[in-house]
Amino acid sequence: MLNKKAVVLLSGGLDSATALYVAKAKGYKCQCLIFDYGQRHRREINAAVKIAKKCGCAYRIIKISLPWKGSSLLDKKKKIARSFGSIIPNTYVPGRNIIFLSFALSFAESIGAAAIFIGAHAHDYSGYPDCRPEFFRAFRKVVLTGTKAGAGNSGIKIITPLLHKGKADIIRLGSRLKVPFALTWSCYLGGKKPCGRCDSCYYRNKGFKEAGIKQI
Amino acid sequence: MLNKKAVVLLSGGLDSATALYVAKAKGYKCQCLIFDYGQRHRREINAAVKIAKKCGCAYRIIKISLPWKGSSLLDKKKKIARSFGSIIPNTYVPGRNIIFLSFALSFAESIGAAAIFIGAHAHDYSGYPDCRPEFFRAFRKVVLTGTKAGAGNSGIKIITPLLHKGKADIIRLGSRLKVPFALTWSCYLGGKKPCGRCDSCYYRNKGFKEAGIKQI
Repeated sequence: MLNKKAVVLLSGGLDSATALYVAKAKGYKCQCLIFDYGQRHRREINAAVKIAKKCGCAYRIIKISLPWKGSSLLDKKKKIARSFGSIIPNTYVPGRNIIFLSFALSFAESIGAAAIFIGAHAHDYSGYPDCRPEFFRAFRKVVLTGTKAGAGNSGIKIITPLLHKGKADIIRLGSRLKVPFALTWSCYLGGKKPCGRCDSCYYRNKGFKEAGIKQI
Repeated sequence: MLNKKAVVLLSGGLDSATALYVAKAKGYKCQCLIFDYGQRHRREINAAVKIAKKCGCAYRIIKISLPWKGSSLLDKKKKIARSFGSIIPNTYVPGRNIIFLSFALSFAESIGAAAIFIGAHAHDYSGYPDCRPEFFRAFRKVVLTGTKAGAGNSGIKIITPLLHKGKADIIRLGSRLKVPFALTWSCYLGGKKPCGRCDSCYYRNKGFKEAGIKQI
């Protein structure tokens, strides 16, 4: 019998929500991991919880401390700069996906899950090194060499269903899978409404426009 | 000018203490990371703090939560089994070194450190997959592909000075470097004195005996 348990990294944004719905559509029984890592606001954590509940999946919130900050996402004194993908933006959190994946791996191995889903994609990896295809290839080697699950078999799969997709494609896919986009939160700021100006808002709005799908 | 800052993973045992003193001897300015990850007892955390202080190094205690347990080191209801290196023991914590290294990497990148020191070694990797040479080779690839520091240069070095050494060799080396062995704590249990019977006590005592060095 195929082991169909999966751990899904859920941030509250539309990418990871789509990754969750992809996992569900593939027949995985999903357990979501949501990180409280000192973000500037709790909006995205609350969004992630709502999405997990809507999807009917179990979730855990893992609190981690990165006291060295070093990113405008963690440090309210730093202004969030815009980059449009041309450079590594100051929203880059050193080692973030490596940390998230390492917890997911520990969790997956403990519950005997077959896969980990993460919603990283092409737009991210123009800016964030830990979203690049070569990073995920390297991390897969870590799974094979550094876990009990990896010793002697194929280990736990790291599945990146959106990796080569642009934002509009992700939105089209999510729309087909009935991802509750209205529950997702993309804005880097934590206002009552999305700011509409940060990189994250910019790509979200552009994506919906290109996909020809109306935001609710 | 050579960047001589290093992050050292410090557990409170004699291996990581020796790794710290190796880093110091190589001229690195060390920042120790100590993890409070739900161990059965606080003895090793207290030991790590004392060792860092004795060495004159800065340290940070990082509290992390691994609520899935899945190891006798995290779950007091489980009996700590002995293995003597023949199988993966039930003290194995899934993904532990991957998690520790990912935090160290985030920290190292944030402070511009050139290296991370970890005291894993041959005796461990007969039992723990995340102590094997091939695991560290894979993790080095993660550093190169998944960090800003790795993009375009040699990245942050993962240094494993004890990797191919046996316990007696480590104790001889530590003795030469004046590692304060009396402050270190190896026993898996948290009694007033080491139990003398768990794997960790067994290897420690055997190592001192083989090295011909008297334990204080």
